[in-house]
Parts: sequence; structure tokens; C-alpha cells
Amino acid sequence: MEAQDTVHEAHTPAIPSGVRSEGDALARLYDSVADDMEATNRTIVARMDSPVPLIPQLAAHLVAAGGKRLRPLLVLASARLCGYTPGPDGIRRHVNLAACVEFIHTATLLHDDVVDESHMRRGLASANAVFGNKASVLVGDFLFARAFQLMTDDGALRVMAILSAASATIAEGEVLQMSTQNDLSTSLERYLEVIHGKTAALFAAACRVGAVVAERPAAEEIALETYGTNLGMAFQLVDDALDYAADQARLGKTVGDDFREGKITLPVLAAYEAGDETERAFWRRVIEDSDHTEADLATALDLIDRRGAIARTLDHARRYADAACAALDVFPQSRLRRQMTDIARYTVDRDR
Amino acid sequence: MEAQDTVHEAHTPAIPSGVRSEGDALARLYDSVADDMEATNRTIVARMDSPVPLIPQLAAHLVAAGGKRLRPLLVLASARLCGYTPGPDGIRRHVNLAACVEFIHTATLLHDDVVDESHMRRGLASANAVFGNKASVLVGDFLFARAFQLMTDDGALRVMAILSAASATIAEGEVLQMSTQNDLSTSLERYLEVIHGKTAALFAAACRVGAVVAERPAAEEIALETYGTNLGMAFQLVDDALDYAADQARLGKTVGDDFREGKITLPVLAAYEAGDETERAFWRRVIEDSDHTEADLATALDLIDRRGAIARTLDHARRYADAACAALDVFPQSRLRRQMTDIARYTVDRDR
Repeated sequence: MEAQDTVHEAHTPAIPSGVRSEGDALARLYDSVADDMEATNRTIVARMDSPVPLIPQLAAHLVAAGGKRLRPLLVLASARLCGYTPGPDGIRRHVNLAACVEFIHTATLLHDDVVDESHMRRGLASANAVFGNKASVLVGDFLFARAFQLMTDDGALRVMAILSAASATIAEGEVLQMSTQNDLSTSLERYLEVIHGKTAALFAAACRVGAVVAERPAAEEIALETYGTNLGMAFQLVDDALDYAADQARLGKTVGDDFREGKITLPVLAAYEAGDETERAFWRRVIEDSDHTEADLATALDLIDRRGAIARTLDHARRYADAACAALDVFPQSRLRRQMTDIARYTVDRDR
Repeated sequence: MEAQDTVHEAHTPAIPSGVRSEGDALARLYDSVADDMEATNRTIVARMDSPVPLIPQLAAHLVAAGGKRLRPLLVLASARLCGYTPGPDGIRRHVNLAACVEFIHTATLLHDDVVDESHMRRGLASANAVFGNKASVLVGDFLFARAFQLMTDDGALRVMAILSAASATIAEGEVLQMSTQNDLSTSLERYLEVIHGKTAALFAAACRVGAVVAERPAAEEIALETYGTNLGMAFQLVDDALDYAADQARLGKTVGDDFREGKITLPVLAAYEAGDETERAFWRRVIEDSDHTEADLATALDLIDRRGAIARTLDHARRYADAACAALDVFPQSRLRRQMTDIARYTVDRDR
């Protein structure tokens, strides 16, 4: 809760707690853009304000809850890698756009929280559950609108084109994910399309926007977009692996969320594909028919482990991380470039 | 279902069925911009397409359901009133922005379905009831993103500033409405603030955008914005009156929706204010404690009628409609200007 309390302070800590303590690749990259990240945090707090008190209250809960701020970090690092320096007007375009990207991300998180009515007992949904849905949707909409106001203030049509296309792709990815739910016949290709939409598209846009504000040649823009896409794919693959593999306490989230929702992710697809008939019957019951108990989760974790499905998922992630690193070859060697390739590797090795 | 079936035809009828048959002020205004409205409908169909099939399916359900298309009509009529003609490139900016405004509106309707858990909208089963909360949220997000892509394609920063600010104001209005729910101590001023946000802000933006594309002086922009604001206020006040007064079959929505949701609207506030102690106790039970039966709705309708609360609501609406008409005085007399003042009067006199 500490992060939440600090949200209205003038000097929000640049580096989310829990990142620095790891002393890892991510913390080093945060350090490299610490001033810009502090400015981004201040912009986030300033721009989520509204005369309607519930909005900053709820937005603060998520925006300030201490996520990794990975997407704004990518905007800032990409702009820096491209040698961006603010113009004579002193406006830090990359800072405003980093805040913008975090707003888009937060809006999608809020909307992802929305629960289908079918998941509540009809007519018995608690006032709180209904209030939650309602607030999530509307505050998400507000942040999305604010993101577009930040883009408008920035004034570059190319930035708007990139970020509005990414926003459409995110929505498409989320809808596609919804339509693969509970469906074990989902192909690997379709799964990759889903995670591209829900995660990689915004990573790619964040990186590309950094190159755009620096007014770099197309080759550098495309290199950063490729870096972002591949980093995002790796990130989501690992996220999906962690949902079946992580130490629950360290992850800070419940293992098995995806399992309980019947979400189709690579660990499940790989275990299903490699399974014998008995195993496949198990997967059909728990995923397709949504007929499962907590004991079934233990069985699922065991089957996923025995069929090497986590390893297969991480193999995919590692290939994407390698592609992310390779994409940065167009830039001369530098400390910053090394830090950016390091976080691609960190993404695969992380356990949280 | 008829309107839905025609959505993929090349020549979507310009005038929604049910409007022409009335032979009223609205139909005459549609006639004046019939070509542009047909082009708008085609743009809407083209731009809601997506490789993810569920998106056009769900979007068609609402976009094609034959609402009044009032907001795109306002963009088109305002642009025409300002003498807008497409440039030598043949691009009809007002048509693209009319589609854009309808997408923003449809996105808010989809999200409103989640919020209000309403079961009927425009006489069809709501998208939410058919597809679920989550789909409504995500397809709304997609349409919102598409709206911003249309603005980006248009390329005018002033248009983006107007429409992104309106989008933020809509979200604020909806959140404010949420926080007044079940609260009979809501002031008239606060209620007016809510309906300004949820309805009048987009009416105003639609009208103003018409003036912006025509590159008219600030006085005309502001006149049209004032017209739109006041028209929107009148429109929402009448909508709120109709929820307690309309013939259910003709309105195509269930009378008493607002009552059942504990929504605070002027008919209730006025009846509460004018009521005696017994009546006030009744209102507190049914609105504040959400403790009501269908028999209570009959009582509510009776009290609202006896206390003249509908008349008071319509008085307010009439004053806003008058202000809308007066705002157009800066424009020379013309058939189009008269049609635009006529729809302000129609808004107050309509029974659907």
C-alpha cells in the first residue's frame, strides 16, 4: 500500500519498490532514465486528476499500485537510445508520451477486470461487485480519453497513428482471446496472435514512439518496433508460464488464475498436445467443460511439469527475447543498448 | 431486425426507418444531408470491420440497430450550415468525422450497457444481454480506438482536441452519475452537470467539429457549440422524462428503467422536492434503499404525475431548446438553419 500513499507527493519515487531491491537488469535501466521516470510519474498524477473525486481515487489505486512501469520505461529508453533531447521549449515529449502509454495500459487493465454477469449469481451480485464493474469501465474510459488528450497535446500525427492503431489492436487481441476461451483446438498461431494483440502491440508502439519523437530514420523506428514486439511476446509467454509455475508468494498473484478462467495459454496447449488420451480427457473436462476443483489444479500443474510444457513455453520466450536483442544491432554499442538487451534476457529469467 | 440485415449492403438507407415515417422535423433535416448520411453509413460499416469476426458482428448489432444517428446528423448539418465543401482531394472530412462521433457514441452505449445492466436498448436486446459484459467492454474499446484512428486520418489537431476532451467529459459525467445513484440529496445543479457530461458534451463537440472543418470564425464555432450543448441538455431531460411517461411500446424501451436502477433524474428529484412527508418516505425507500416492487413503479408514476414533475422537467428542456435556437442567430436565415431550430423543438415535443 506504500506506493498508493505516495501518489500525491511531489516527488514520487522513480523506481517502483521491489525493482531496485532485485538489483537486476530492470533496475539498471530504470536508473539510466531516473529523472525522466520521475517526471513521468508526476505527469501521470497530474493528468489523472478530475473534478470528479472518484476518478483520481480509483485511478491512483491502479496507476500508483506499483506496477513495473515497463511500457513508459520503454518509451523513455527508446527515445534516449535514439538520442532524443527536448527542444528549446523545454517540453519533454517522451515523458508526456510515456505517461500516455501507461494510461492506455492502465485502461486495458481496468477493463480486463470486468467480470461477466455469468460469473456472478444472477440477481445476487453484491453491490460491491457491480460497483466494481461499473467503476472499472468508466475510469478506464476516462484514462483512455486522457491518453488521447496527451497525444493531441504532443501534436504529432505519426504518434497518434501509432498509438491509436495499437489501441485498436489491443482490443482485437482481447476479443480474440475471449473467443479462444475454453477452446483446446486453438492453434499455436492463434495463441501467438492473441498475445501479440493483448501485449506485444503496445510494447512495440511504446518503443516506436521513442524513435519518432527523436526524428530518427525509418530503419531505427522499425528496429525499435521489432525490439518492442519481440520483447512483448517474450514477456507475455513468461507471464503465461508463471501462472502455472511461479512461487505464489513471490509472484504476488494467485497461481492458476488462467486455469480457473479456462484461458488458453501455451502451457496448457503444449501439455494437451503432448498428453495421452487420459490426459486429454482431463484437459477437456477442466478447460472445455470448466468442470474443475482445486485438486484438479494440482493435477494440471503436475501434467504441465511432466510434459515439459513450461520448458516449451520458455523456449518460445527465449527465441523472442533473442530476436528483440538482435533488432537493436542497428544501434552502435552503448551502455543503454546493453541495458535494453539485458531486460530482454531478464524477462525470460524472471520469476515474478 | 430489418436494420441489422441491411448493414452489409452497399447502399444503406440514409434515413433510419421510423424517422421518415414520422414526416417530422428530424426527417426533413436528414433529407437535407441525405447523400452525406449515406456516405457516413458506408464509412461506419467499412471502419468497424476487423479480422476478428466477433467485432463486426457485435458492432453491427448496435451501430446498425437504427438509432437516430443524431450525432452524425449534427456534424453533417453543422458543416453544411457553415458552408463546408470538400476540398479538391474529394475527401469528405465531415463524413469521416460524423462516423467518428457515432463510434464514440456507440462505444459509450456499449459501456453503458455494462454499467446499467439494462436489458433493452433501441428496442432490441442489448448487446450486453446477447454477448456478455466483457464483449461489450472490449468492442466498445475497439470502436473508441477506431474513432481516434478516424481523427488521426483527418489530421486536424483542433478536431482531436475537441473530441478527446469530449470523451474525457463523457467518462466524468458517467462517473458522476454513478456517484449520485440512489442519492436523493443530489442537487439540481449536480444533475445538470451529469447530463451535460453524459449527453450534451458530445452533442456540442459534434456541432463544433462541423464548424472547424469549414474553417469558420470563432463566433460561428462557439454558436454551434452552444447550440449543441443546449440541444443535448434538452434531449437528455426529455429522455429522462420519457422514462416515467412514455408509451412503452412506442419508445422501444422499458418505462421505469431509471426507477429500477435508482438513477437520479429530474422527474424523481422534482417529485421528491414537492412531496409531503409520506411521499418522501416512499421515495427514500424505493430510491435510496432500492426496496421496490413493480407496484411501487405505478405509485411512482402517479406521484410524479400529481406533483407536476414531468411538466417541470419539460419546462427545463424547453428553456434549453430555446437557447439552442437562439444560438443560431449568428447565421443568416436559411432552410437549413430553420430545420436545425425545428429539431430543437421536435426534441421537446417527441414521444419516443
